[in-house]
Amino acid sequence: MNGYVGKILRIDLTTGDIKEEQLDEKVARKYIGGSGLGAKILFEETDEETAPLGPDNVLIFMTGPLTGTIVPTSGRHAVVAKSPLTGIWGEGDVGGHWGIGLKKAGYDGIIIKGKSPKPVYLWINDGNVEIRDAAHLWGKDTFETDKLVKEETNEKAVVSAIGQAGENLVKIASIMTDGLDARAVGRSGLGAVMGSKNLKAIAVYGNRKIEVAQKDKLKQLTKKLAPEMLKKAKGMHDYGTAGGLITMEYVGDLPIRNWTQGKWEEGANEISGQKMAETILTRNYYCGSCVIGCGRTVKLDSGDYAGVEQAGPEYETLASLGALCLVDDLNAIALANEWCNRYGIDTISTGGVIAFAMEAYEHGLITKEDTGGMEINWGDSDVMLELIHRIAHRKGIGDLLAEGVKKAADKIGGIAPEFAIHSKGLEFPAHDPRAYNSIAVGYATSNRGACHLQAFSHGFEKGLTMPEVGYPESRDRFEVDGKGVMTAKAQNLMCMFDSIKMCKFSLFGGITITDMVNFLNYVTGWDMDIDEFMQAGERMFNLKRLYNVRCGISRKDDTIPGRILTHKRKEGGAAENLPPLGRMLSEYYDYRGWTQEGIPKKEKLIKLGLEEYI
Amino acid sequence: MNGYVGKILRIDLTTGDIKEEQLDEKVARKYIGGSGLGAKILFEETDEETAPLGPDNVLIFMTGPLTGTIVPTSGRHAVVAKSPLTGIWGEGDVGGHWGIGLKKAGYDGIIIKGKSPKPVYLWINDGNVEIRDAAHLWGKDTFETDKLVKEETNEKAVVSAIGQAGENLVKIASIMTDGLDARAVGRSGLGAVMGSKNLKAIAVYGNRKIEVAQKDKLKQLTKKLAPEMLKKAKGMHDYGTAGGLITMEYVGDLPIRNWTQGKWEEGANEISGQKMAETILTRNYYCGSCVIGCGRTVKLDSGDYAGVEQAGPEYETLASLGALCLVDDLNAIALANEWCNRYGIDTISTGGVIAFAMEAYEHGLITKEDTGGMEINWGDSDVMLELIHRIAHRKGIGDLLAEGVKKAADKIGGIAPEFAIHSKGLEFPAHDPRAYNSIAVGYATSNRGACHLQAFSHGFEKGLTMPEVGYPESRDRFEVDGKGVMTAKAQNLMCMFDSIKMCKFSLFGGITITDMVNFLNYVTGWDMDIDEFMQAGERMFNLKRLYNVRCGISRKDDTIPGRILTHKRKEGGAAENLPPLGRMLSEYYDYRGWTQEGIPKKEKLIKLGLEEYI
Repeated sequence: MNGYVGKILRIDLTTGDIKEEQLDEKVARKYIGGSGLGAKILFEETDEETAPLGPDNVLIFMTGPLTGTIVPTSGRHAVVAKSPLTGIWGEGDVGGHWGIGLKKAGYDGIIIKGKSPKPVYLWINDGNVEIRDAAHLWGKDTFETDKLVKEETNEKAVVSAIGQAGENLVKIASIMTDGLDARAVGRSGLGAVMGSKNLKAIAVYGNRKIEVAQKDKLKQLTKKLAPEMLKKAKGMHDYGTAGGLITMEYVGDLPIRNWTQGKWEEGANEISGQKMAETILTRNYYCGSCVIGCGRTVKLDSGDYAGVEQAGPEYETLASLGALCLVDDLNAIALANEWCNRYGIDTISTGGVIAFAMEAYEHGLITKEDTGGMEINWGDSDVMLELIHRIAHRKGIGDLLAEGVKKAADKIGGIAPEFAIHSKGLEFPAHDPRAYNSIAVGYATSNRGACHLQAFSHGFEKGLTMPEVGYPESRDRFEVDGKGVMTAKAQNLMCMFDSIKMCKFSLFGGITITDMVNFLNYVTGWDMDIDEFMQAGERMFNLKRLYNVRCGISRKDDTIPGRILTHKRKEGGAAENLPPLGRMLSEYYDYRGWTQEGIPKKEKLIKLGLEEYI
Repeated sequence: MNGYVGKILRIDLTTGDIKEEQLDEKVARKYIGGSGLGAKILFEETDEETAPLGPDNVLIFMTGPLTGTIVPTSGRHAVVAKSPLTGIWGEGDVGGHWGIGLKKAGYDGIIIKGKSPKPVYLWINDGNVEIRDAAHLWGKDTFETDKLVKEETNEKAVVSAIGQAGENLVKIASIMTDGLDARAVGRSGLGAVMGSKNLKAIAVYGNRKIEVAQKDKLKQLTKKLAPEMLKKAKGMHDYGTAGGLITMEYVGDLPIRNWTQGKWEEGANEISGQKMAETILTRNYYCGSCVIGCGRTVKLDSGDYAGVEQAGPEYETLASLGALCLVDDLNAIALANEWCNRYGIDTISTGGVIAFAMEAYEHGLITKEDTGGMEINWGDSDVMLELIHRIAHRKGIGDLLAEGVKKAADKIGGIAPEFAIHSKGLEFPAHDPRAYNSIAVGYATSNRGACHLQAFSHGFEKGLTMPEVGYPESRDRFEVDGKGVMTAKAQNLMCMFDSIKMCKFSLFGGITITDMVNFLNYVTGWDMDIDEFMQAGERMFNLKRLYNVRCGISRKDDTIPGRILTHKRKEGGAAENLPPLGRMLSEYYDYRGWTQEGIPKKEKLIKLGLEEYI
């Protein structure tokens, strides 16, 4: 079928078996691709008994129908597995060029099971698949691995790899792709799943053509939208995601000092995208088929890697390793980002655990005895860097922090869980539910745990619209009623972004749901309308929820920490607001056709064609 | 021996056995009386296996050597048992005239075991002890009980009784004494222990003389100190404990909206002791031998009990049922106080659970479904009153709240434990550790759970001194170093107040440790010096701690909620302060001769003469 090459690779690393499976068009129209198709596979091939780091877990790399086409921002793929960090549904979505490379090499996705007896990497070269020895790569960081694998395969290959963190089964380990123009499958600890399989990297290369159904229409629409996108998303082009940091501080969205502080103006100025552009920025970089180019390359003047030019810190990184820890040194954060990318650990979760450690130290719950004499004080950038090293190598206190804030806090006990800021075990990203009410219900119900991208609902509280589904205007961020419904609809839409494979930032470029449906139809030759399109998103969201329900998830788990629900910051742009989660959640469940305990009702599942999963 | 009549009554309610035991002078000099002697008895007669509401728990009423003498503020006794609220050491200290009455009836204390097959009360009449049927009293409130028991015994008898709450085994039930001039054994849920034994009341009356060793010296010192005390404690005389409320709001000590808010000036003015004096106050009342007379009688103009004159609300009651719940209606709080006294429930814990319920309702963790349609909104005085009725009768949601905030929060789950404000299961009294650093370590280590009277350390951060033990001047409230030591010393001293039986408010009247030692020696004929005196306090504190250690208590339990340790209120008189508990606690353990895990070391116990309890 158009937009897909039609084959999925199935690899058993225990036995070395390599198989190809045909992608069924009926299934593809129902679950589309990316994490939608990934949900179907994961649901069928793992369950509540599956150990996330055991050989039975399934690591799924999946492109979408738009991946590799000219559709703007479509250079993306998804990675899906049961998460070792949360023990439930895990997914990561990523840009770069690896997904396109996989398709050009002849495959729409890879399903990896088992555990290799020794370190290996995969070399997928234009229809040929090899499991290659990776003994010489084990212990290397992701940049070194990228370089060595390219030397051994093809300089034009695209490499996804884990660093030392994934090898060491660090629960917040990422999978990095595209070498120095780094892009991360950051969340859910999927790097540890890859590590648990002794799989160091996957290199892809090929020249297959990706067919599309209505080439002219696709070209026409792309030609029309691409220049508008660049114009509308100029801020993102000029300053990257970090460009929003100053505004986010101003409106009370930026998390500061582990979510306790409402203002940090001077600090925000020091670590902003504008400051980065004035100082260490050397160039932009782009994911495949993107016109915006939010990627930043920075050059470091100091530190162990002075002189190295590499991917600069994103907003999430600056906020998590910076504001959250009170670190206001842009160079230090850039260096920390470099280390996180080399080791392969998620900068969001890493900032979260370091801020947690700083607060635990402040309260005497972590002491010098635990750290070998090191003080862990707020704002200390050397300590931040040192903790990154220790986490990646599970050294000393790093072994505890490598488990993520939830497990670390449970182990420490006392009041520690009260300042471990996560939902369902996933550390909060850098947007505060007290600044945008919908974020509360979004984080609480996100299937992979606290995530701003699974609903992206705050976008619709700050300028973005979804006219096709009832939101011709953006909503007030402190409004309550209606936010449950809005968040559910936004989640359904985000499921579609994550399965057709477009970047959510295209919304800043003015892309509408109608555009997305058109792109999908032009590529696949289908005749989807908006209803079918949105229902597919709803189906995926419910299937992921069903996966979690089977793991024991219900309303009791659909929450965010008391600090966020009950503590006004009394300063800054959202000084007095607290999101009334319970009220929004009840509305959300009603709209979703779930019980008030958060369990999808049978009739809803039948309506969505999910009867086989009841 | 002098100051004591020498006999302790031992009653087994299962069998009806009544025995007298001789009080040994050696034991008395070591454990003094009150909760000190109570600790020895409870340690020996119950253990970690004892069910607090089972027949094996021991309910101990104990006077001290000064009770019934002319020593100012000595009209007090202690009640000790294993607490059903916390599962550990439980004690309540109370004024009034009951302790004096018990001594005059011929006994220094009563140890009650077992469970009566049917409701009974005790009538202790000048050396005669009767277990009388109380079928007709069961279901009556404490004021009705007081009246009826007096009618059946002697109008001059003093009655301690439980109300419906104790009968219903409400875990925050109190034991009330002295009828309409009400005084409460409020904390630790000891009313439920009395209820579990089917014991409705204890009436005491007699004419025994309480001998003292050095009558003239005692008279002389009393004559000298009493007028000074009244002068120095004039504010307490004029406005009662409630007189401090406005100041406490100003300095950030008053808890507001379940410990989240830093200011509430208008509200504080509305419910202050000054306002009470201007409006509903009709007279003062005094405990036995007291010259200060902080008791308030108020007359209610509205509500079910309009016209009734009864004990007015104390500071703790106004703060807990008022500020903590945002209720600013003095009449409503006075009526609520009346109900709490009638039902026999602790106003501090009751305010704590109601504020908790209001916050749980706000967050959607308690819903209208749980309350039979009632909204539980902040500041709603009708709801506050209704919840008091439901708690006392364990009706609907009241059944949950009757368990105290800790158990209620654990049952509700989610983030509820994060805003259940207690230590070791006892609800916080109305002083904020963010306003006085020492309170943090005081609440965290208090043997009965969060208590401002077991250390009373904040007194020494706001004007009071203990020159005899190194504190010739009061300390700065935001200072950190030295506060662990100061709190430990204050706890040792408070153990002495609670065992010789003097009121801690005598400190406001200028009473010194030297005065206390003199009073004790003049009464008993002993030759204690300050070292022996303070060591006795330290011994008692350690013995209570040992009781708790046997129940599983250690450093992990020596804490206060994250809300207090981590959340600045950003307004009011202590806007920015957070008490660094860990640091103070480590100092505290070192000074106490405990391990850093909070376990008393063997050498310390030997030094204190507690080797038999190791």
